[in-house]
Amino acid sequence: MNFIRKIVNTKSIEDKELYNELKKLLNFSPRSINKYKKAFTHRSVQMLDEDGNPINYERLEFLGDSILGSVIAAYLYKKVPTGSEGYLTQMRSKIVSREHLNELGKDLDLIRFINSNVDEANVGDNIHGNIFEALVGAIYLDKGYNFSQKFIFENVIDPYVDIEKLEGKITSYKGLIIEWCQKQKKKYKFDTYEDSGNEPIKHFSVKVSIDGEQVAKGRATSKKKAEEQASKRVYYAFQSQISAD
Amino acid sequence: MNFIRKIVNTKSIEDKELYNELKKLLNFSPRSINKYKKAFTHRSVQMLDEDGNPINYERLEFLGDSILGSVIAAYLYKKVPTGSEGYLTQMRSKIVSREHLNELGKDLDLIRFINSNVDEANVGDNIHGNIFEALVGAIYLDKGYNFSQKFIFENVIDPYVDIEKLEGKITSYKGLIIEWCQKQKKKYKFDTYEDSGNEPIKHFSVKVSIDGEQVAKGRATSKKKAEEQASKRVYYAFQSQISAD
Repeated sequence: MNFIRKIVNTKSIEDKELYNELKKLLNFSPRSINKYKKAFTHRSVQMLDEDGNPINYERLEFLGDSILGSVIAAYLYKKVPTGSEGYLTQMRSKIVSREHLNELGKDLDLIRFINSNVDEANVGDNIHGNIFEALVGAIYLDKGYNFSQKFIFENVIDPYVDIEKLEGKITSYKGLIIEWCQKQKKKYKFDTYEDSGNEPIKHFSVKVSIDGEQVAKGRATSKKKAEEQASKRVYYAFQSQISAD
Repeated sequence: MNFIRKIVNTKSIEDKELYNELKKLLNFSPRSINKYKKAFTHRSVQMLDEDGNPINYERLEFLGDSILGSVIAAYLYKKVPTGSEGYLTQMRSKIVSREHLNELGKDLDLIRFINSNVDEANVGDNIHGNIFEALVGAIYLDKGYNFSQKFIFENVIDPYVDIEKLEGKITSYKGLIIEWCQKQKKKYKFDTYEDSGNEPIKHFSVKVSIDGEQVAKGRATSKKKAEEQASKRVYYAFQSQISAD
């Protein structure tokens, strides 16, 4: 099937751009671009289909949430053969927590695709997680279960899921990074400074360097939060090395 | 792969029987019989694997529950294009309710496969739903998502899921059956009688005949319950005709 031709024939040039961006994001060629457009359409646009049904991401969110749940369940089942039913349930809740899904949506910068009549500043944080779930739903409808599973492994499990972290064995990422650097005789530096910009609430930024090279940044409303955020990013970037040591 | 040979070589004759029964139940050939044995092993047996991990159905129940959830979610998404996220969530809850899963497990008579040190009378009703979920988990591990989906369609969705019923439009199955028979000029008869057997609690049985032919039976602790149960069975048996009329 020739996707490009199909799109150029039937859709606007904007769809072609979305198609190209999605292809980069998903690591596969989307088939039906409209499913993804729906995943990024907020109810405020008040779009309707031919039958008068609303077109927005809310139904896809329901679908994506359950696909995500079953992929994570199967992953945990195989990954932790010693984990009881209660343990598996708890671990899954942590992975698919609202907070974590919002982070995932933000990291993929899904908001750049949104079609909404509400200002980004006024939609709240949950929109990031919601459209992440909706995207999983769209992938399922477009390409089936195995593609959704692949996407979830590439974007959730491989980069972010760390059983030790989920078990609460890591309480401070900053402490973990410092400990690891000391053990490995690496020089580390946390450069933290006030950075409120034009915002009414005070913000702090931090840059973390290891052996003189900047490896991560963070920004939040407190020094501690910003440093934890940056340290977490360092942790993810060096995860395989840190776990092996 | 030659399943029979594998089983005869490595497992007892009991496994061969289980294999044959499962093949009839599942409508496909199971690959790894041990996964199904686990799905039917109660914790009371206190079985352990080589690494000392408990072998029982509880972890499989967690897995099956989430596979079931996503298959039902995808079904509802496609089946009810007008349903909002809230509607879809509510419908799914009804389909995978504890009560409904227990019924499904009972209808398939899964308890005949159970390996337990607790008497059937003392395990409670939920065991039927639990091993139904565990069976779905075992199918997923043994044959993958598509086989689990097929099993769920054949055993849950096609025979039992009726959107009208779930929406609460049907409040009495007996009323519905009587109304349908009257419309269709069919003769119906509810033959209800006390049938406590050796049980300490009073029970009632009912036989329902349509046009002189017995079409369903029911048995419960009240007349009304027994009649509703039998009527529900009549409804399922004649669902396609009743819906079409």
